[in-house]
Formats: sequence, structure tokens, C-alpha cells
Amino acid sequence: MWTEMGQIVTRASNDPGVRVIVLSSTTDKTFTGGLDLTDGGALSDPRYSDPARKAFALHEHVIDFQNAISTLANCRPPVIAALHGAALGLAIDIASACDIRLAAENSSFGIVEINVGLAADIGTLQRFPKIVGNDSIARELALTGRKFGAAEAKEMGFVSRVVKGGRGEVVASALEMAKLIAEKSPVAAVSTKHLMNHARDHTVRDGLEYTAAWNM
Amino acid sequence: MWTEMGQIVTRASNDPGVRVIVLSSTTDKTFTGGLDLTDGGALSDPRYSDPARKAFALHEHVIDFQNAISTLANCRPPVIAALHGAALGLAIDIASACDIRLAAENSSFGIVEINVGLAADIGTLQRFPKIVGNDSIARELALTGRKFGAAEAKEMGFVSRVVKGGRGEVVASALEMAKLIAEKSPVAAVSTKHLMNHARDHTVRDGLEYTAAWNM
Amino acid sequence: MWTEMGQIVTRASNDPGVRVIVLSSTTDKTFTGGLDLTDGGALSDPRYSDPARKAFALHEHVIDFQNAISTLANCRPPVIAALHGAALGLAIDIASACDIRLAAENSSFGIVEINVGLAADIGTLQRFPKIVGNDSIARELALTGRKFGAAEAKEMGFVSRVVKGGRGEVVASALEMAKLIAEKSPVAAVSTKHLMNHARDHTVRDGLEYTAAWNM
Amino acid sequence: MWTEMGQIVTRASNDPGVRVIVLSSTTDKTFTGGLDLTDGGALSDPRYSDPARKAFALHEHVIDFQNAISTLANCRPPVIAALHGAALGLAIDIASACDIRLAAENSSFGIVEINVGLAADIGTLQRFPKIVGNDSIARELALTGRKFGAAEAKEMGFVSRVVKGGRGEVVASALEMAKLIAEKSPVAAVSTKHLMNHARDHTVRDGLEYTAAWNM
Amino acid sequence: MWTEMGQIVTRASNDPGVRVIVLSSTTDKTFTGGLDLTDGGALSDPRYSDPARKAFALHEHVIDFQNAISTLANCRPPVIAALHGAALGLAIDIASACDIRLAAENSSFGIVEINVGLAADIGTLQRFPKIVGNDSIARELALTGRKFGAAEAKEMGFVSRVVKGGRGEVVASALEMAKLIAEKSPVAAVSTKHLMNHARDHTVRDGLEYTAAWNM
Amino acid sequence: MWTEMGQIVTRASNDPGVRVIVLSSTTDKTFTGGLDLTDGGALSDPRYSDPARKAFALHEHVIDFQNAISTLANCRPPVIAALHGAALGLAIDIASACDIRLAAENSSFGIVEINVGLAADIGTLQRFPKIVGNDSIARELALTGRKFGAAEAKEMGFVSRVVKGGRGEVVASALEMAKLIAEKSPVAAVSTKHLMNHARDHTVRDGLEYTAAWNM
Repeated sequence: MWTEMGQIVTRASNDPGVRVIVLSSTTDKTFTGGLDLTDGGALSDPRYSDPARKAFALHEHVIDFQNAISTLANCRPPVIAALHGAALGLAIDIASACDIRLAAENSSFGIVEINVGLAADIGTLQRFPKIVGNDSIARELALTGRKFGAAEAKEMGFVSRVVKGGRGEVVASALEMAKLIAEKSPVAAVSTKHLMNHARDHTVRDGLEYTAAWNM
Repeated sequence: MWTEMGQIVTRASNDPGVRVIVLSSTTDKTFTGGLDLTDGGALSDPRYSDPARKAFALHEHVIDFQNAISTLANCRPPVIAALHGAALGLAIDIASACDIRLAAENSSFGIVEINVGLAADIGTLQRFPKIVGNDSIARELALTGRKFGAAEAKEMGFVSRVVKGGRGEVVASALEMAKLIAEKSPVAAVSTKHLMNHARDHTVRDGLEYTAAWNM
Repeated sequence: MWTEMGQIVTRASNDPGVRVIVLSSTTDKTFTGGLDLTDGGALSDPRYSDPARKAFALHEHVIDFQNAISTLANCRPPVIAALHGAALGLAIDIASACDIRLAAENSSFGIVEINVGLAADIGTLQRFPKIVGNDSIARELALTGRKFGAAEAKEMGFVSRVVKGGRGEVVASALEMAKLIAEKSPVAAVSTKHLMNHARDHTVRDGLEYTAAWNM
Repeated sequence: MWTEMGQIVTRASNDPGVRVIVLSSTTDKTFTGGLDLTDGGALSDPRYSDPARKAFALHEHVIDFQNAISTLANCRPPVIAALHGAALGLAIDIASACDIRLAAENSSFGIVEINVGLAADIGTLQRFPKIVGNDSIARELALTGRKFGAAEAKEMGFVSRVVKGGRGEVVASALEMAKLIAEKSPVAAVSTKHLMNHARDHTVRDGLEYTAAWNM
Repeated sequence: MWTEMGQIVTRASNDPGVRVIVLSSTTDKTFTGGLDLTDGGALSDPRYSDPARKAFALHEHVIDFQNAISTLANCRPPVIAALHGAALGLAIDIASACDIRLAAENSSFGIVEINVGLAADIGTLQRFPKIVGNDSIARELALTGRKFGAAEAKEMGFVSRVVKGGRGEVVASALEMAKLIAEKSPVAAVSTKHLMNHARDHTVRDGLEYTAAWNM
Repeated sequence: MWTEMGQIVTRASNDPGVRVIVLSSTTDKTFTGGLDLTDGGALSDPRYSDPARKAFALHEHVIDFQNAISTLANCRPPVIAALHGAALGLAIDIASACDIRLAAENSSFGIVEINVGLAADIGTLQRFPKIVGNDSIARELALTGRKFGAAEAKEMGFVSRVVKGGRGEVVASALEMAKLIAEKSPVAAVSTKHLMNHARDHTVRDGLEYTAAWNM
């Protein structure tokens, strides 16, 4: 699923006609319920008997997985996540890799990897705390696996806005915002996303220097 | 205008008698309406006919512009922005380069560069997201150009406080805060600003190491 | 006191039976009133007569002090600060080095170093602004020394939650949260803390790469 | 050509049977004569009439080109460049992205981009100065376009060894070295390359921390 | 052995009377023959049966080992390594962590970890390539495990000087150099080492900024 | 003197007609004998009686000094240092900030700050070790203050070439090289210097990304 998602996003990113991407689920109740843990890929492959080779295969698997999710962050057009229903585990990795997040009132979020004995390894621990404005809550959520709703998500800075209703309403809201962005110069929109990505991971001085080179 | 602002700030910074700077506008309705885009400087200069030289001239222009605004961030005394009325475009670059921001109730903010087909290139994309506590809103604002008021600015973490009234009230409030800071040891105030600037762009470990050297 | 605290935390960290640490005060009124400034250590030592050697001794003193506080951030088990009463100066350094912060309603916070002519040098200026979601308030507090209560602490993103009551209630609340975390796989909890520490000081890409290596 | 080279390297990298790669040319006189500048790709595409879109297309073109060359640096197995004859322009980008460089006596090197009015943009300016031990010569070569032979390449630290003879001899020498490496544990060889890549771009402390996680 | 070495260096570093450290071996033939691989510590401990806990124990073991070797790099006084005889494996980790390296003519060096199926993990891969001026040779040596003598060590930039003779002569030469350094102001010597350590891992600008703070 | 030098370089840098700068001395025997230590500026100013203010004045003095020397590194045109005679102390700071260094046979170099009880603080400790290919020698020279000649300077990677003769010959040689560079496209030469400066202080990946933006 996530490999395909990465490929679709890449294809859309390469199509100059695509100006914004809205990401949502096709089912009402669930954005995504998280990773199916039986999808171990190379891990359960009987060819990998010695631990070092198994570790290498696992490493490649995790890197591929991270790269697929990171296409959302690195693709040219801005991506809006329209969140609703149960959005647990992988849903937080995915949403955190998007540019803008809107949440339906009925959303139920959770960094639940800890409940199955894992540290989230596809991006949540890297992106979530840089997105929100309360590091204490970010750590509490990742360490306890406690669920949180749309209102708390807004209060801590995870989403831009809580939309009344469910999937239909939040998708409508996201599309409206997408239309606004699509009306802008695509060069300006793509540059804005690109420069904000760069700024997050660099000093202010480096970001300014890169911006001056980019706009040149 | 901005060249002059940079020079005034530099002069004030070099005067040991200046302990805090309060930045405001002289007109009630507008903090600043943003950059006059006809001020293209070297860009419209007929001497620069070939594209590479024009790009170099533009690069130098943007760097000079960035440096002028960055004097607010890098000057010795803390700078308080007393924001009010329309504060659009360049106003956000300027305010984001200040240390503390207060907003009059009547403030109207906007990262409006996208509306004229540009990515903000004077500091907003670098500083704004590191100042506020909601990256989703930061990106939404930069990508849609949507205006926002004082209350939303406070909620997302852009300003310290909303002050009832307009320019007069917010300037009074800023001056009161400035007086508080001016009563402190200037060595401590200057060091605090300097070390917080350093910390923002370094790891915690690097920041601590620099602090130990600085206080030595 | 702080040297001892560092040693206790290190010892607890080395004990695989310790899964979470809750940090609190034994007195109701005060979490900690800040550093006793007469504890100058090497500074008042008559052996250090020439300024360069005195500076070196001071440097070592500050580094030792920083290291003691940083054990909270760097130790294996997550640390929950149960804050209450007066929590000034050093209390903010300590609380900022913890993973999660809960505040009793009666808490009174303050970055008060500026009131005695100092820039905070034990971690507050490095960690506090990266924890909260309003850089303007962070700088205002460090530059004015103004006190703030539990509700404002929650609003700016310093604490996860305000707990009704005083020391007893906030410690009970912290223990409850600690129990939740202690029930999780300790490998997952320790990894989550470790990876979030790494992520705060690295780019998203570096954080992902490190996570893939760590989980391997 | 370079797109294909990137694909071949990627394929070899994914084949666990491939333990070392030796890179050479099929013609005696030339390793590579540099980039055919008429291969402008999107640049000469008439669809890109406005300058901003042309710049974006050029940007993508350069990034793709850089990525193709970087596969040599980032692929799992170590890569040995067997250099001989004329190795100009792009040859330096390619050789600098390899792990080990051997040069036939008859080699003639040059960072010749400046002769056609360009700054090298595919990796030479980034990698060459970090590989050699004389920054003054590195800058002289990039700024003057002056050619240099195998002996000078060895003296400045660009190649491991000068091999008497031409293509046949240097390829034989590279294959011998490749055999030595192929006899080692592939896990150890891949890890050594991976950790040395990481180390070059990180602090010693970060490199050690990553190594500890990797070997775990 | 290495734990003790770290402790001795730390003790010497804390003694203001110690101005320079010369590191050598007590046996003529060998500087150090490398790590005794049966010293697996926690690894062979039967308490650690499950792989995750074993990995954690191994991680701690490697970190402790790295820290012991890093005391040479991080201790206050400059450290001169007087190298002679067989100096393999761990010897390169140790020598690379010293400030200055002198080699007796009879020295025989080797990054031999690859011969036992390991990537060097105690510092060689991080420090060696930043010390020498030929990255191609650095990678060749780490990937092939090939031995190299004093003359090649000098040519690639690993040692300052080749000293005629064996252990006696190189130690005498190191002591002479140590005397020269010990005659300088200890504040200046310690600062020089400290600032060069800082500079290696920071940008030029950061290094200059730190130097200005340090000298203040 | 150095303030003036910075101003002259800045002026030359702003003049598009200046394509290369050659830096030399007007006296045969000395390139520069180092800093006149009685030029303490603000330090001996009786206005600065309390130590904190004196430290601040000293800090500003050092920063100004560093900035003046750094104009050589940061100015647009490449700078060639024609070194000859005694080139001690400040001469190494200056030469290290240039792009290319040529040395007359009669040159005598030394990082002599340690002889007067100081750590070099104007750039030598930051730039010298990143320029040369032997960190052991770099540290030895900075810690012992030992002088070294042109041949050793070439061998360790400090200069591109040793020129037979004295001032006249090395200046002639530098002018010849300057002519070669001046014949190239100035856009390419300026970009090459700019991108090599950027590359030295960034990861390979960051350098490539910046290059792609710059060339756009």
C-alpha cells in the first residue's frame, strides 16, 4: 500500500498540471488503522537466516518505507491531509509528512506503536515534535500511546483547523483550501513549500542564503 | 526605507546607552503595507542586459535586503515589535526578526507574497515557522496568503499578547515592557538575546558549550 | 545538591529495573527556589588569583553543572517532572531537561536569572524555546524575569497538563502516567526517548537515517 | 549515458552477489572527455518559454544528473575507479564520487568546466576538496582549468597510487584490489563504506553515535 | 585496559600540573596489537538472552569503549602518540584520537578490523579520514586491511614525522616536543587544542564565533 | 591596518572590473610580521573599568578583526596570496583566508601566537587545518610555534607551489596565475569560489542542493 502511495505521489509530482494534493481515506470510519504488522517483507523471508543479513534486509525495508512516506514531504506540490475517523500509528507518520493538516471533529489520533513494543520508525518521532508547539505532550503521546481527539490536536498545534462533521466535510474543506492554493502562481507555491522544507532543517542564515540562491 | 532601517538599528546597537528598541509605525492604520514592488533596484537597471549578470545583481539585492532586516535579529539590544493595523508581507519579515511581538486588537496580518506570485524571500519562511507552534498553520498562511487577526496570531504563538485598542495602546504596552527590560543588567539582557539566537540555530549540546564559553 | 541529583539519576538510569523517573520536591511550597548564588565553588577559591585561571575554573564549574542537569535529558528512562509551588530559576533548567512536565494549579514559574544580572546558563535558554510554541513569550520571560502560572505554562506549551491541587495531586498524576509508561516494553520506551532526543538536534533526514540504523 | 550509468550501478548495488565495482572506460585514450554540452535536455525544449519554468526544468535536470553520479557514492558496494587517458570535466565528478581511485601513468586530469564558462555542478566542487589534502591546489585547478597528471594527482591526495602503463595495467591493478576486498566479509565492507560516508558529513561525535547504533 | 587508560587520562587531565601527555607502549615490538576479541563483556553474559536486550548491552559497551578512547581527544592537555612496532586495529583508533603522532621507522600500521569481519567502530572511521590528506588511501586501507609503514603514514598525512630507530628514539622525540609545548603558557596550549577540536566539527563561521566567545 | 585591508578588499569586490586579487607585501623581507600587540584598541580604553564591559569590548574587537580578515574569504573575486619572507602569526590568518597560496623559496612561516601566550583567534585555528592534509602537523605547529619553510608548506598542503626566488618572483608567478583566471568567464570564476566556500562548510548533499539552486 505505502509503496504504491509513494509511486502515486511521485507521478502526481512529475505532472506539471497537478498543483495541490489532497490526501484522504475512502472509508468513513478510518483514515488509516496503522501498519499491518504481518507485512514483514524481507524479515520473514527464509533466505535471511544469519542475523547480520537479516538486519541488513530489515534496514533496507525501513529505508524504503521511510522514503515512500517522505515523498509526501518532498514532492513538488503542497499536500493537504484531510484527517477523519481513526488515524492511528502510520496515519500520524503520513499526516506529519504532509504540509497542512485538517481534522474532522470525529478524528481519533494516536502514536500507538509503543503499544506493540515498537518505537515509531517511519517519521513520527522526527516530524511530529517539530510540527507541534508542546514538546511535553509530544513525548507523552509517543511514550503512553494515549489517544487524542481533534480539539486537542488543534490546541497542541498538530492541525490547522477542526472541521465540523466527518470525512465528507473535512474533504470539502481541504478541497476549498486546495482551490485557493491552486489559484496562486505554481512557481510561487512550489518554491514556498520547497523553501519551508529547507528552512526547517537549516539555520536561519543558511535558509536565507539558500533562498537568495533559489530566487536568483 | 529598509536600508535606512538597518542603518538606524545598527547605530542604536552601537550606542551603549540604548538598552531596548521598540519598533512601530507612525501611522495608525498600517504597520507596513509590504514592499513596493516597483523598487526593483538593479533589476530594472538597463546596464544588466545578460541574464547571468542580472541574476547576480538580483542576488546581491536580495542579500542586502535580508541583511538589513536581519539587523533586528542580530543587533545587541532586544527588539520589541508593537504591531497594529495592516501588517502584511514585509511586516511579517520584520516582525519575525524581532525578539518580542505585541499585537493591537486591530492588527491584520498576512504572508501575502504568494498573491503577487512570489515566495517570501526576506526571512518569513525561515523565521516564522520557528517562532510559532503550529507548522500546519504556518504553511497554510504562506501558501494561501490568507489574512489573520491578533487573536489567531496569539493562539498560534506569533505574538506574546493581544493589546486592547490600536497603535497608541500597543506602543504604550511595548514601552512598559521595554522599561522592565531596561532596568535589568544590560550585560545580562544582551547575553540572553545573544544566547537565545545561538540556541535556535544549534543543537542543545552546542548551545550549552557556547554558553559556558560565553559566560567564562 | 545538583551534583547529587545527577549521580542519583545516573544510578537509576543504569538500573534496568527503573523504567520511568518522576521528579518532584519534598516540600509543598517550593519545587526549587533556584540556585544558591553563594555556592560559587572554585570562583571564590583563593587559589585562583589570575583571571585566566579563574575563568577556566568557572568554565569547568559551569560544564559540570550543565552535565548534572543534562543527565535528566540523556538518561535511558523517560523523566516526568511533577511541578508545583515556586519553581524558579534552576527549576526551569531542570524541568526543561525532563521529557514530560505536569504542573499543579498552584505552580509559579519564572526565568529569574536576569533579576540577579545573569543570563541563564544551565540549559533554560537552550531547551525552553525548543519545548514551547511561542518564541515571543519565551524571550519575553527570559528578558523580563516575569513570573507565570500553570495556566499560561499550559497555553504556551511548557507543560502537558494542569493538575488541580498542589504537590500531592500533581505527583499522583505523574505516578499514574509513569505507570502507563512502565507497562510498555522498556526497549520501546527507551528507544522512543532516545530517538526523540536525537531528532530534536538533527535534520529530519538525519533523524530517519539514525532511526533505521537504531532499529536494525 | 549518465542516467544509464546510475541505473547500472543501482542494479549492481541491489544484487547481493556484487561485492565491489570497478569503473573504467572501454577506450584506451579516454576515461571520459566530459559532458557533451549539446545534451541540454529540457533546456532546449521549446515548451519551456518563460524563464521561471525553464529554470525549474533546468533545476530538475541538474538534480537528476547529480543523483545519477551520486549512486556511485551511495551504493552499497565499494567502487574503485581505474583512471587512464584523458579524464576531464565529468570524469572528475565521477571519480570523486568513487571510494578509491587508481591512475594510470598516462592519465591527464582537468576540472575544465571553467573553460566553457561554467562552475562544475555535478559534484566536483563538493567532493574533490574533501578528498585531497591541499585546498590551495583544489581551488587553483577549479579556477584555472589547468590539466594535471597522475604524479601530481597522487601528490595532492586525489589517487591512491600511480600504476605504470595505461588502461590495461590500471584495470588489472584495480581488479586485484577488488579481489582483496571481495574476500572480506561483505557485511563488514558495506558497513565500512557506509560509515565512512556518514563520517565525512558529520561531526566526530555524531559519527561515533551513528556507528554505535549501526553496529548494534 | 582501555577503561583504565580512559581513567588515567581523565586523572591527568584534571591535574593542573600536567601540561602534555605522551602516549607510548612499554614493549618494543608492539604499540598495541589491537583488541582482544574475547573481551566481549556483556555480549557473552548469559543474562542477556533476548536479542533486543543483547543489542542494548552491546550498544552500551561500544559507547563506553568509544568514550574511553575519546578522553584522549577531549582531555585538556595535548596528547602526543609515540608510535612504534606493530600498531594495528585499536592502535589506529587510539592514535587518531591523539593530537600529534610521531612514528618510529619500524612502525607497522593497519586498519585490520575488516580481516575479522568487522567495521572499525571505536573512532578510526570517524577520525582517520579527517586527519589524513588522501581519502582514497583512507578508504583503501579500511576496506583491504593492508598494512602500511612509517614512510607511507607520513606521506598520506597520518604522522608529523618519521623518527629513525625504534621505541626509544620515538619516545625521546615525543618528549622533546612535549617539553617545547610545556614551556608555553598552559592557558594558550589548552585553548589551542580546545579550539582546534571545536573547529574540526563546525563551520568556519561557527568556529570563529566560538573563538571570540572563548577568548572573551 | 587590517581594518583598512578589509575595506580595500570590499571595495575591490564591489567593482565588477576586478576579477582576481593578488595579495602581497611591499617589503622584501616580510610578508607580515604579525599583529602589533600594543594595538589593543578598546582593551586599554580607561572607560572600560568593569570586567564584563571590558570583555564585551574585547569581544567586539575580535569580531571586527575576524570580519576584516574574512573579507578575503568571502569577497566575490578569487584571492591569490603571494607569500615571501617572514610570514608569521597574522600572516597565517590572512593567507589561510585566501583561495590560493604561492610561496617564495625564502618564505618562513609560523603560527607563533602561542609564543606570546595566546591561542590564534583570527582564523588560523579554523581554516589552516581544513586547508592542509596533515592534522598532526597542523596541531604540532599551533602548539609549538615552530617555524617552517616553503618546502614543508608545500608538502603538508598549505601552498600550491614553491616559487624559486623572493618577492619579485612569487608576485610574478601569482600575476600569471591571476591572468589565467581573469581570462575565464567572471560569472564562472565567482560561482566556483562561492560554491567551494559553501561546500567546505556543508555536507556533500547540502552542497549539491545549493549548487543546483545557484545554477538555476
